[in-house]
Amino acid sequence: MAPKNKLNSLAWRVPDGASSATTFDAFLNGALQALDQTLLPTELRRDDWRTIESVWEGIKALRVRGAPAIGIAAAYGVCVGLQTVFRDSEGAVREPSEAEFFARLDEATAYLASSRPTAVNLFWALDRMKAKAESLRGTATPAEIAATLLDEAREIHDEDRVLCRKMGEFGAQFVRDGGGYLTHCNAGGLATSDYGTALAVFYWAVEEENKKIRVFADETRPLLQGARLTAWELKENGVPVTLICDSMAASVMREGKIDAVFVGADRIAANGDAANKIGTYSVALCAKAHNVPFYVVAPSSTFDLTLENGAGIPIEERDPEEIRRGFGKQTAPDGIDVYNPAFDVTPAELIAGIITENGVISPVTPENVKKIVGGAFK
Amino acid sequence: MAPKNKLNSLAWRVPDGASSATTFDAFLNGALQALDQTLLPTELRRDDWRTIESVWEGIKALRVRGAPAIGIAAAYGVCVGLQTVFRDSEGAVREPSEAEFFARLDEATAYLASSRPTAVNLFWALDRMKAKAESLRGTATPAEIAATLLDEAREIHDEDRVLCRKMGEFGAQFVRDGGGYLTHCNAGGLATSDYGTALAVFYWAVEEENKKIRVFADETRPLLQGARLTAWELKENGVPVTLICDSMAASVMREGKIDAVFVGADRIAANGDAANKIGTYSVALCAKAHNVPFYVVAPSSTFDLTLENGAGIPIEERDPEEIRRGFGKQTAPDGIDVYNPAFDVTPAELIAGIITENGVISPVTPENVKKIVGGAFK
Repeated sequence: MAPKNKLNSLAWRVPDGASSATTFDAFLNGALQALDQTLLPTELRRDDWRTIESVWEGIKALRVRGAPAIGIAAAYGVCVGLQTVFRDSEGAVREPSEAEFFARLDEATAYLASSRPTAVNLFWALDRMKAKAESLRGTATPAEIAATLLDEAREIHDEDRVLCRKMGEFGAQFVRDGGGYLTHCNAGGLATSDYGTALAVFYWAVEEENKKIRVFADETRPLLQGARLTAWELKENGVPVTLICDSMAASVMREGKIDAVFVGADRIAANGDAANKIGTYSVALCAKAHNVPFYVVAPSSTFDLTLENGAGIPIEERDPEEIRRGFGKQTAPDGIDVYNPAFDVTPAELIAGIITENGVISPVTPENVKKIVGGAFK
Repeated sequence: MAPKNKLNSLAWRVPDGASSATTFDAFLNGALQALDQTLLPTELRRDDWRTIESVWEGIKALRVRGAPAIGIAAAYGVCVGLQTVFRDSEGAVREPSEAEFFARLDEATAYLASSRPTAVNLFWALDRMKAKAESLRGTATPAEIAATLLDEAREIHDEDRVLCRKMGEFGAQFVRDGGGYLTHCNAGGLATSDYGTALAVFYWAVEEENKKIRVFADETRPLLQGARLTAWELKENGVPVTLICDSMAASVMREGKIDAVFVGADRIAANGDAANKIGTYSVALCAKAHNVPFYVVAPSSTFDLTLENGAGIPIEERDPEEIRRGFGKQTAPDGIDVYNPAFDVTPAELIAGIITENGVISPVTPENVKKIVGGAFK
């Protein structure tokens, strides 16, 4: 029995009544519909993003977040960005020249790439969209290429669903009936197409293998993705969850409540060093000190084999106000210096295994990384 | 040159115009005036606590917090609690019997002891007040004993000032000019009489030894004492401070920005295991992993030599709502399970030294604990 579908936070929505007889019509009239994750857990709202600026802002402001979901949103975002070259200034449909089309494609992908620096899935998805378009240059019309790009974005979206389930199945072997597990940030359905990376492991263990488990969710300051998203998502899906502050993870481990840690990743270097949400490295150090195995769960598209190790991964720094007045209320002195890196890098030697859709990289060595994901990517 | 006085968050206030010709008058008409720390950093408000219930609530709700400050507040709280036996139901002054006086003393100390379980300074101060009263039983009138108890509370308060400065001086030897230091929660002037424990080290290094330093302050979830109090207090006193989330401490250490960690303590066992604000243990593990020395700064009154090790220290669990809706806004699903321990225990082997008013315990062994603080306490 296939696991039941999870919440879908992203979709290419073609408005009711709009012409969508062909894929090009769906491309031209559609919009990226996204669940605004910044409003959870108190409001479940979907918005149509009809301009590339709204897609860029949605990624930047974390309305859509999670490395695989950012990739999917960017792929659809390219379609949103290309719509403008098929309309004249009055809004009537027109056929752009090939040069015009590719110029706009370059512009759109460069713009979307500037939204967030760390998650490599963003660049991976944009590169894939560009490569698909290039492969048709000279042999198809811009309208045909545009239709193919919508198909490509949908394929990236659909593939991710399949990858997530494979990761869940590979990871569930490390989950025992009656066990307790810790996760940090949100690497669930909200962060992917529908099943998650780290959380896929829990869903598979519970839904496919009937294991009883308890998940401890770090709240994940400053933006509380663990409290707002992971706790919400696991509860909605019937997985027992206990919310803790990030600073409590070490205590919970010391009390013997944690059998293993599962987290996602935003970029993984060729040696297995993994960038993920700030605080992940701290969790990995605490896990090491308590002999708790620490697993990273991520698809091949999260690997950046051009980087020898994690030192080359760019780390986004975010607005100090996220820490000074997190949720509407001022909780720190005005103008106080703040350091707000959004990610940290967990060195490969702290990682027991990296669970991918192709299998588990363990021990985490450059050779094993190459063996499992080296074939598919540069 | 003596360091300049810091903010005084607690005082025994005798109202203007009220009769305070004698210490007994000051006892009878005074009130415990406390800075409400829950309102910082946006509001600096002092309230008069005129009933023992308001003192109890003030400790419970963390309006006054920090182990030494809780002890001082409890000592003054005993005075507030004893005022009632010197008035009849109309409010006129009366002389209670010795039996009445001591019954009320027992009741008041037992009640105050029930406010918070972890910080031993609370029990230490209450025991000291009771012992002082007992030493006068049969040789002084209740009014004389009451006056002596106000003097005793003031002495506890004044002594703490001196102890803080001694700890600052002992600790400053571990601070270098140009160094970077991390602290967790608030172990500053707000947590003591005026100079702090962990922060006393920074104040002494800066004010007495002219060292230039930068302090990284963990915000300290869930109640953000680091963001609201430590960052505020250091900034007010001209010590450069950078605010970070608790989950960033490991990254900042890895970046080489931290020369040492200094934290306070709420209770220290005979072997040196130290209970402090939740998250301290995590910081200690991260410090160990980066070869950063980790110091605890606490007066002798924080030691509980009746406990062989930290396993016996009771850990307060607090309201889940502190995590679910920290600052007025709901940030986690309704009714989600929460685990909210207020403290954790850092084992002695992770502590490079415990800095007391009598000197530095290093290495931290039961023998060295006994040598430095064993004489003064049971």
